[in-house]
Amino acid sequence: MPVLTITTDFGNKDGFVGTMKGVIWGICPQVQIADISHEISPQNILEGAHTLWRAVPYFPPGTVHVAVIDPGVGASRRALAARIGEQYFVAPDNGLLTPFLEAAEEDDILIVHANNPKYWRQEISATFHGRDIFAPAGAYIANGVPLSELGDFIEDPIWIELPEPEATKNGWVAHVVAVDIFGNLATDLPAARLDAKKEITFRISDRVIKGLVPSYGHRQPGDLVALIDSEGYLEVAVVNGSAARTLAAMIGDWVEIVYE
Amino acid sequence: MPVLTITTDFGNKDGFVGTMKGVIWGICPQVQIADISHEISPQNILEGAHTLWRAVPYFPPGTVHVAVIDPGVGASRRALAARIGEQYFVAPDNGLLTPFLEAAEEDDILIVHANNPKYWRQEISATFHGRDIFAPAGAYIANGVPLSELGDFIEDPIWIELPEPEATKNGWVAHVVAVDIFGNLATDLPAARLDAKKEITFRISDRVIKGLVPSYGHRQPGDLVALIDSEGYLEVAVVNGSAARTLAAMIGDWVEIVYE
Amino acid sequence: MPVLTITTDFGNKDGFVGTMKGVIWGICPQVQIADISHEISPQNILEGAHTLWRAVPYFPPGTVHVAVIDPGVGASRRALAARIGEQYFVAPDNGLLTPFLEAAEEDDILIVHANNPKYWRQEISATFHGRDIFAPAGAYIANGVPLSELGDFIEDPIWIELPEPEATKNGWVAHVVAVDIFGNLATDLPAARLDAKKEITFRISDRVIKGLVPSYGHRQPGDLVALIDSEGYLEVAVVNGSAARTLAAMIGDWVEIVYE
Repeated sequence: MPVLTITTDFGNKDGFVGTMKGVIWGICPQVQIADISHEISPQNILEGAHTLWRAVPYFPPGTVHVAVIDPGVGASRRALAARIGEQYFVAPDNGLLTPFLEAAEEDDILIVHANNPKYWRQEISATFHGRDIFAPAGAYIANGVPLSELGDFIEDPIWIELPEPEATKNGWVAHVVAVDIFGNLATDLPAARLDAKKEITFRISDRVIKGLVPSYGHRQPGDLVALIDSEGYLEVAVVNGSAARTLAAMIGDWVEIVYE
Repeated sequence: MPVLTITTDFGNKDGFVGTMKGVIWGICPQVQIADISHEISPQNILEGAHTLWRAVPYFPPGTVHVAVIDPGVGASRRALAARIGEQYFVAPDNGLLTPFLEAAEEDDILIVHANNPKYWRQEISATFHGRDIFAPAGAYIANGVPLSELGDFIEDPIWIELPEPEATKNGWVAHVVAVDIFGNLATDLPAARLDAKKEITFRISDRVIKGLVPSYGHRQPGDLVALIDSEGYLEVAVVNGSAARTLAAMIGDWVEIVYE
Repeated sequence: MPVLTITTDFGNKDGFVGTMKGVIWGICPQVQIADISHEISPQNILEGAHTLWRAVPYFPPGTVHVAVIDPGVGASRRALAARIGEQYFVAPDNGLLTPFLEAAEEDDILIVHANNPKYWRQEISATFHGRDIFAPAGAYIANGVPLSELGDFIEDPIWIELPEPEATKNGWVAHVVAVDIFGNLATDLPAARLDAKKEITFRISDRVIKGLVPSYGHRQPGDLVALIDSEGYLEVAVVNGSAARTLAAMIGDWVEIVYE
């Protein structure tokens, strides 16, 4: 059975996501649907991109990811359908897919402007393309319709600027890119860029952390720690507590990494 | 594979909805289940009816919609199972289905009092008919059990009064009937009742809006606009912002439509 | 089609639960997945245990329940897979399964330490065993892999202390064990322990309730009532209102049951 995911800023109250599932199962009745998140901050493309980036690699090859954070709905932005590596995507052309485009080899990327109305709903509203264009396009891909049927190939999708760690004289400046429900702070520094042979000091909000711990359980509750998170990036956390609250930290904050 | 939806005021924290799915899959293991909303305001039948009304038409024919906003649980209100047009419904008899009853031709409506205990769970609690009566009834319908098996036909389901736009000398008074996650204000005025050939002025909370825009993208961020929403009703919105917050607007507020 | 449930304290914003579903469907594409709750208070094992206890009995035999409230992730706590009665469980060894262990006959319990890496993801992070160990273990069980394959049998799972009603000279002291979305107060006193032939007075927060009602509908909106809840325990509620708000009641509060 094919798998499809949905990621939006629609919330779970108004019924928008349920409506999309109705459209999808009307076209592809057997597809399994996973909600990744519907609590992306309204129209926050970067947050949506980051959330997708962390979840998508764990889905089976051939999964279709429908992502609708879409401030430009009803204006002239394009709807995209793409295959990047072994995963399929349907999304507005506004940068949502940037992390995947950045990470993939060029010949592993196939993108079409999903402009063939045969694979839309018959009536297109001006404000809910999630239901009228993205949901049906995703369902048809799950049904095996090739991308070339959905529209014209393009090579100029929109990219957004992603946060990047900056090298310093004796280390890095990383940035907080996400705060999860536990108040853990995810950064943009991949573990591979840390020189694990050196002694490292981490600085954030006037606090100093000496060295990495392997996991939360290696320190006492309440301790501020640095570790490698489950996707392989530097994370700052408070054991059984909230680093976000303890440090009053937010997305965009700096973490300095200093080799002694 | 059959499709079933669930709409409740149960929230997502307590496990009530998961429990209903357990009952449903115990009876109809292959049914696809979509959550429409579980964040209907507690016991708000009108809000539940409105949310269903906007989502149901996008589900494939034969879908079963289980709706449980049920202030009268455990008292004498009836449980209903119904076919209205091509959609099936299971709900308490308290007006939740009014918009569908109102819109359908009489000979397209079939309603039974779901009083045959053969299609309930064996033990019936006094407080959770969502689990004990509505979930199993819905699952049996998804299994193909005909309505006539579930109970006795009735012709007197309860209706509630729905908000209706009022015609004025030179236009309409519409009412805000829903505020979505973006702060957009849905009204009860269908687009078909607007005379698109005339110049229209909209008034809400001492603010004036001149004319309709086709979509959000046709004005600047922060602009207050009137447009036709994705279900075909008049909507008031702030581009990339919240009309609810900007206008301190609430359900029940008036929107005056004046032809110049 | 097999059924699997997920219960966590991960919330619905960060994409963690969606990620687990990706792993599960990669292993067992046809399994139906029900979310029980992802809003368990962070690291609150007792609340997770209680929520599972109320939902699990309504799932079909053979359902796999994946529960991840896991303050000890990455330290030395064991991962468990178990069959208790007709239900399967995958959970950290921290007491989450206590209510089921307590209620079952000993020869109806089979537990293994899920230490066979063949049934984990290939790479194991230090902080997200929900994705790397519990999700795949659950999916393999749904696929029919016997428990004995997943690891070594053990007989010493961790138990936590559950609240218990205390017998008094002329009645009971019960405890509030959960507050649901409606503000209803669930207690730890099973209906079977109430002597229904006697006249009963309930006391909570200086308020007195005379006798049980069969359901909410038997009193007026706003009335404070005692009744038997949908899982067979004493409940205190306000009709069409919130007992939690009316009484400023919290988990752990006492309810005195006095036979007159």
